[in-house]
Amino acid sequence: GAVDKGVDYANYFCTYSFLYHQKEMLSDRVRMDAYYNSIFQNKHHFLGKTVLDVGTGSGILAIWSAQAGARKVYAVEATKMTEHARQLVKANGLEDVVEVIEGSMEDITLPEKVDVIISEWMGYFLLRESMFDSVICARDRWLKPTGVMYPSHARIWVAPIRSHLVDQKGHHFEGAMEEWHAFVHDTKNSYGVDMSSLTDPFTEEQRKYYLQTSLWNNLQPEQVIGTAAIIKEIDCLTTSVDDILSIKANFLSSILDDDMKFSGFGGWFDVHFRGRSESPAESEIELTTAPSYENPTHWGQQVFLLNHPIRSSKGDNINVSFVMNRSKENHRLLEVEFECEYKQASGRLLQPFRKKFFIE
Amino acid sequence: GAVDKGVDYANYFCTYSFLYHQKEMLSDRVRMDAYYNSIFQNKHHFLGKTVLDVGTGSGILAIWSAQAGARKVYAVEATKMTEHARQLVKANGLEDVVEVIEGSMEDITLPEKVDVIISEWMGYFLLRESMFDSVICARDRWLKPTGVMYPSHARIWVAPIRSHLVDQKGHHFEGAMEEWHAFVHDTKNSYGVDMSSLTDPFTEEQRKYYLQTSLWNNLQPEQVIGTAAIIKEIDCLTTSVDDILSIKANFLSSILDDDMKFSGFGGWFDVHFRGRSESPAESEIELTTAPSYENPTHWGQQVFLLNHPIRSSKGDNINVSFVMNRSKENHRLLEVEFECEYKQASGRLLQPFRKKFFIE
Ligand SMILES: Nc1ncnc2c1ncn2[C@@H]1O[C@H](CSCC[C@H](N)C(=O)O)[C@@H](O)[C@H]1O
Ligand SMILES: Nc1ncnc2c1ncn2[C@@H]1O[C@H](CSCC[C@H](N)C(=O)O)[C@@H](O)[C@H]1O
Repeated sequence: GAVDKGVDYANYFCTYSFLYHQKEMLSDRVRMDAYYNSIFQNKHHFLGKTVLDVGTGSGILAIWSAQAGARKVYAVEATKMTEHARQLVKANGLEDVVEVIEGSMEDITLPEKVDVIISEWMGYFLLRESMFDSVICARDRWLKPTGVMYPSHARIWVAPIRSHLVDQKGHHFEGAMEEWHAFVHDTKNSYGVDMSSLTDPFTEEQRKYYLQTSLWNNLQPEQVIGTAAIIKEIDCLTTSVDDILSIKANFLSSILDDDMKFSGFGGWFDVHFRGRSESPAESEIELTTAPSYENPTHWGQQVFLLNHPIRSSKGDNINVSFVMNRSKENHRLLEVEFECEYKQASGRLLQPFRKKFFIE
Repeated sequence: GAVDKGVDYANYFCTYSFLYHQKEMLSDRVRMDAYYNSIFQNKHHFLGKTVLDVGTGSGILAIWSAQAGARKVYAVEATKMTEHARQLVKANGLEDVVEVIEGSMEDITLPEKVDVIISEWMGYFLLRESMFDSVICARDRWLKPTGVMYPSHARIWVAPIRSHLVDQKGHHFEGAMEEWHAFVHDTKNSYGVDMSSLTDPFTEEQRKYYLQTSLWNNLQPEQVIGTAAIIKEIDCLTTSVDDILSIKANFLSSILDDDMKFSGFGGWFDVHFRGRSESPAESEIELTTAPSYENPTHWGQQVFLLNHPIRSSKGDNINVSFVMNRSKENHRLLEVEFECEYKQASGRLLQPFRKKFFIE
């Protein structure tokens, strides 16, 4: 169904209207370096060209594009952040090149087609926020047949991990349930109302919150205990919204170390700036959000925890069926399901299991 | 202007659809005791009567009304919490008396007028959430001319306080600004973009967040350093929406102790259950959210901090003009302004000042 604009604004765009939030993104050095290098090491894509920045925020990518020599940059932004972007463009002497346009990408019109679409559209686990939809819409309407996408490619990764958060979340859930039982007892005693019929729905609500919601986490590289798999590859030039509405993948991951506890899965993404085959990048840039000591990003990783860790050893294999869909209540949120067959190195097969998670 | 229902749901009602949140209210003993006693110590208002519970949530007030002998209770709730309320009503054997109706009070229709309207509509500082509007609407449409309001009266209080939060918030603000200046420096150096033109709007944004937003706080009674003033009295039977849209009050507060630091104002409310003059309560109940060691509530107090505390002594007087309006962006939020003349016991008048706050 169609999305109510006011609700979408309240739930989603609103946070982007704070400079504080834009500053957080502008302070992510890995992110900044990747876009900066992708532009300034590939000036041939910008020199004398027309550029569209989808969701310009503070205007940073539009300003860099102009500094790299673009003839004209259209900088589109849905929130009032446009006022600040305009100010920034002017303070940096680029008002003749960068035109800031307030409106949602889907609604506005440009006076011409563009040579380059640049955008920082990536959400947690790549697709949370569903902002790539707006980039696709912009591409199909405004990119010249010879145009280039910045970034040009994206991939989603999943790997088995160990994490102490399993125990912590379990304890929190149990604590919440203990409190509930005390509450039911007190409410009956003090106020004569029997609340026990709400125990099931309350349990479900708390289970969803503590155990079935994926977590933002900065994983340490050694927490990844098995081979990582690519569950989706996106060519930004050709992918359609239908291609990303529902994502299905089957993969096999092998445990790489002995004496580990398989606690769940970590998920992350990378994007690449390669230009297009007819007009390749001179210098290919990668932006990865994989677990890293030296180059952590504000995206961190998404962590999907099992209810109970599984003792695991080198040579064990996990056969995973993965499905990801948009949440029915909010098209910018995601729901994923992991279906796992765990085969020990010895050949013994554990009881298969499946678990569903919400990316909120 | 009219309120967009979808946006109102996303911003406001949404939180009430979680049992977790309903449980927090149901665990507030001061709140629960007051409503429980108001009903069961005044059974004559309920016995054989028709009752409307505006915003029934879990259904608790409707259930108590039925247990106190009501003939029929209409329990209206805007969120899906109705499903749980229905379950609870049934589990407590009251499904013949309590009818749970899902919808917003403004939209639904009842088959008859009622003898009693009961509702727990109080937000922070009484009026945040603007839910009393819905109670007024219910009263004007559905209360019999002889009907009784539960609660029947409400008052808003303000008093000068001391609080260490003044320094803390000041430090946070300064820390945020230091970080900003480092960020501007780095962005120029590393990425060739001059962000200094955003310093003013960023300062304003952070000032609003750290210094101009009132705080939820559980004040200790001795933090109140001057006489408390009532800035609004509401008779729930007669007050109109116009009466509460904008609230103006002038009051004088006297500092009661020596060697204090006047750091700002604390605000709270109380409500009373007195029935109506033609049909008074047999036992009058008060629910107060004033600072208290023994009887704290989940409402706590709202704290409005000055930028710098003022050294104060017994006998000093503060002459305050107070104004409260609804926020232009969100009719459920409030904006207040304090205009102060501080007169020392010696007769010396300090420089008058005014400060604006957002109740978010
Ligand atoms: N459909 C749409 N139309 C216009 N702006 C959009 C949009 N979807 C998301 N945005 C905006 O896109 C921005 C994404 S955050 C990235 C901001 C900036 N390009 C930077 O790299 O720092 C947000 O400011 C958001 O408000
Ligand atoms: N206009 C309106 N119509 C229907 N329900 C409303 C409403 N405005 C607020 N509410 C509901 O009123 C409740 C207020 S909280 C109080 C819940 C319950 N009566 C108790 O005392 O525990 C919330 O559940 C909210 O969703």
